[in-house]
Amino acid sequence: MTDLRENVHRFWAAADARDWAAFATPLAEDVVYTLPQTRERISGRERYVRFNREYPGDWHLRIERTVAEGEQVVTWSRCTVGDEEIPALSFFTGDGTGRISAITEFWPEPYDPPAGREHLTERYDGDDRQGT
Amino acid sequence: MTDLRENVHRFWAAADARDWAAFATPLAEDVVYTLPQTRERISGRERYVRFNREYPGDWHLRIERTVAEGEQVVTWSRCTVGDEEIPALSFFTGDGTGRISAITEFWPEPYDPPAGREHLTERYDGDDRQGT
Repeated sequence: MTDLRENVHRFWAAADARDWAAFATPLAEDVVYTLPQTRERISGRERYVRFNREYPGDWHLRIERTVAEGEQVVTWSRCTVGDEEIPALSFFTGDGTGRISAITEFWPEPYDPPAGREHLTERYDGDDRQGT
Repeated sequence: MTDLRENVHRFWAAADARDWAAFATPLAEDVVYTLPQTRERISGRERYVRFNREYPGDWHLRIERTVAEGEQVVTWSRCTVGDEEIPALSFFTGDGTGRISAITEFWPEPYDPPAGREHLTERYDGDDRQGT
């Protein structure tokens, strides 16, 4: 039995390396991938691996933070495509044997700050890893 | 010394109740709040409490999932304003005594699914709590 956190790290390393056999190994056969922002869901390891294999662009991903507790693991990753970087926030659930049975993922995009709060906020350009 | 997870739950309950004294209690005096999407940062408990107190709208918040590990806690919350619901993903860091010293928060918005992956995905209307 492999630790869920370790399996999640293997999963991300395999994704970044486009090693689809290694990517599939930590996944339960009936894994469910959910994207709440688009209300899309992908059911089953085969489809989910294919979704990632077919995903366009020369994207790369590195983990900024992992928080693991029992059968729950969260990663905050940084996904870069060329000069663009966007965060990915992934909530993993284990199946009780260390395999990943569910992933719910969010891809928050940049937006302009609403007016009227400049008296409380500063803008920053560089590092957003405060407190890590 | 209070557990960080417990303090995070008190913090959210106080926010939902607009109890600003209770909201401030679990925060370190030099707490830093970071919004990577707008690249805004708020420094210090007083400013951060004021930011929340002044935040417009009759919003309500309930926690969908908490994952806690040592000095790191993540919450996935559901924020509703009228009929609209959007998720909030909050990464808390403790100061070593159970107080919250940093919060990095994401507010991912809905978007239309890109074309070309309908052969792998289904759309869902209801519950997105798969695997919880």
